[in-house]
Amino acid sequence: MSERIIALDAFGSDNCPDVEVEAAVIAARAGHSIILVGDQPILERSLGRFDGISRLPLRIHHASETIVMDDSPAKAVRGKPDASMPVCFDLVRRGEANAVISAGNSGAMLACGLFKFGRIKGVDRPAIVNNVPGPRGSCALLDMGANVECKPLNLVQFAVMGAAFATCTQGKARPRVGVLANGSEEGKGTDLTRAAHRLLREGPSAAFSYVGYVEGKDLFSAEVDVVVTDGFTGNIALKVLEGTARALVDFLRDAIRGSRMSKLGALLMRPAFKVLKQRVDPDSYGGAPLLGVQGITIICHGGATPRAMVNAVRLTDSYLKQGLTPGLCEAISAHTDLFVAAKAAESDPRKTSESS
Amino acid sequence: MSERIIALDAFGSDNCPDVEVEAAVIAARAGHSIILVGDQPILERSLGRFDGISRLPLRIHHASETIVMDDSPAKAVRGKPDASMPVCFDLVRRGEANAVISAGNSGAMLACGLFKFGRIKGVDRPAIVNNVPGPRGSCALLDMGANVECKPLNLVQFAVMGAAFATCTQGKARPRVGVLANGSEEGKGTDLTRAAHRLLREGPSAAFSYVGYVEGKDLFSAEVDVVVTDGFTGNIALKVLEGTARALVDFLRDAIRGSRMSKLGALLMRPAFKVLKQRVDPDSYGGAPLLGVQGITIICHGGATPRAMVNAVRLTDSYLKQGLTPGLCEAISAHTDLFVAAKAAESDPRKTSESS
Repeated sequence: MSERIIALDAFGSDNCPDVEVEAAVIAARAGHSIILVGDQPILERSLGRFDGISRLPLRIHHASETIVMDDSPAKAVRGKPDASMPVCFDLVRRGEANAVISAGNSGAMLACGLFKFGRIKGVDRPAIVNNVPGPRGSCALLDMGANVECKPLNLVQFAVMGAAFATCTQGKARPRVGVLANGSEEGKGTDLTRAAHRLLREGPSAAFSYVGYVEGKDLFSAEVDVVVTDGFTGNIALKVLEGTARALVDFLRDAIRGSRMSKLGALLMRPAFKVLKQRVDPDSYGGAPLLGVQGITIICHGGATPRAMVNAVRLTDSYLKQGLTPGLCEAISAHTDLFVAAKAAESDPRKTSESS
Repeated sequence: MSERIIALDAFGSDNCPDVEVEAAVIAARAGHSIILVGDQPILERSLGRFDGISRLPLRIHHASETIVMDDSPAKAVRGKPDASMPVCFDLVRRGEANAVISAGNSGAMLACGLFKFGRIKGVDRPAIVNNVPGPRGSCALLDMGANVECKPLNLVQFAVMGAAFATCTQGKARPRVGVLANGSEEGKGTDLTRAAHRLLREGPSAAFSYVGYVEGKDLFSAEVDVVVTDGFTGNIALKVLEGTARALVDFLRDAIRGSRMSKLGALLMRPAFKVLKQRVDPDSYGGAPLLGVQGITIICHGGATPRAMVNAVRLTDSYLKQGLTPGLCEAISAHTDLFVAAKAAESDPRKTSESS
């Protein structure tokens, strides 16, 4: 039996379960072991669209209910024990699978990660991380929305987890970590960012180098590998990024429509546009890992395409191979002193509210 | 004498005073009345590069000092009374000019606006507004960095001022206003955004329609005209937007280099790229107005080009023609009830911290 079996919630996305089923078939054809979790008769019917299913490393695990967008996170862990999402986590707990992927309610995913897998020892709050592709390498941005309001300790832990993520998954030896702020000077930022900045500056780490404040534009520079922020700001940064990319494509399309010459030019440029699309397409990342819980938990976009989910499977498989969870556990336990300092600063109001 | 004379701080930008001098000459040739403020001998030398200066509506006003980036905002209003930036404001106060433009230290600009012009009656905190160009019309985003930490009252006032700005400068009859958050559902956001959301929802206005929470991607949609947020988040949103646009251009350039066909295509597409550039180029806006002080105060980017500053002059002139400052005064006084409610909610902790 493979040690990298992925439990895929078949009833998470906006277009479930057909998107999930198609992704599972493509991924299984590529050799990944998948358990599709959800209503068996519906899944069998959806799988009926494909040939040669029986020979694939793909099976259905029945779950009678579904977590919907309106469900409270608590419902996912208590109210609907036989919903496809929590059942995915149960499969991992029982050793029948090794990782969970879902495009469902992200609050419910966070709750399942916390209560079904449990936090990594020493972690106060898990965080969702996203890779931002830049012209010269990608940058890991966290938190993307798991924690709307944060304490300095949280940002410090995001730095440690983000660095471990960059090291494990991208082989970056000593990633450069920055705190997202409204300017690079020390006096900028909020009480939260200033306190996190002071803690990271004063608590040197062998695992990463702290580069100080970074700005929104630096997400794309080659100067930083990991950027930490609260989940409110991180979510806005990511949505602005995606919105800008889409708006520019729309602008360009309008501009091309205006002239026949441009249309011909666009035709000739098709290969270049294709390369561009591959590099910036959010689908190529597929899913965002929840860091800080004891198991690989991947959150996909509700509007995920089959391609996005296949890429999520591929990445999940590599996270298992790379030992992301053990890597995070090790990083957290190696930085205990830094977290002790952060907690001490919290209980000393002079230290946390001091502004430069 | 023209009633739309612009005091241009000639020693604000990173490449001062040549950028400012060139912009002043171009603007004056287009008929704008400009007073270049700064060291007279240096300015005369820089002006010497141009012909026919004497016939233009352009003169120098001597100021012996300069506000530099390291100067504290207080220094701009007290420590260096004869610096070019505060002298611009003095010219307006004495009735010799009607608006101020500077690409200098924005904290110092804010301090000068507050202490030299004074706040519009009823305004708690002024805000910097920026226009975000979208494929289907632009969106006014504020605050862009004048207020790193905000109260609900501030966001409510930003909504009123942003709406007045959209009405005055873009003729939008009843602009749609949203609060920037990490999702559109009511339960999203922080204590700050939830309190502002409640106040704006419950205090209907004849001047604008409140559409609720908007996300980062909505800045480019045709669904909202004004988006309010705190200065920390606003600054990050704008920098991410600018960074994404630049990264996409870099990506595309790399992709074009990869193939001869693409190079030819890019050549044919030059007119389309030019249209795109005109529409998204931050230079086309040139400067961001500080709303809430008693006079037109325009803050340009430190790295502004002459073209950006000329556009700032053109916009400043239209703000004067459109009566932006009287429009803001009127809007603020028409919404006194809303601000009273916001202040009452602030002193009642149950109301401000209640979460949905």
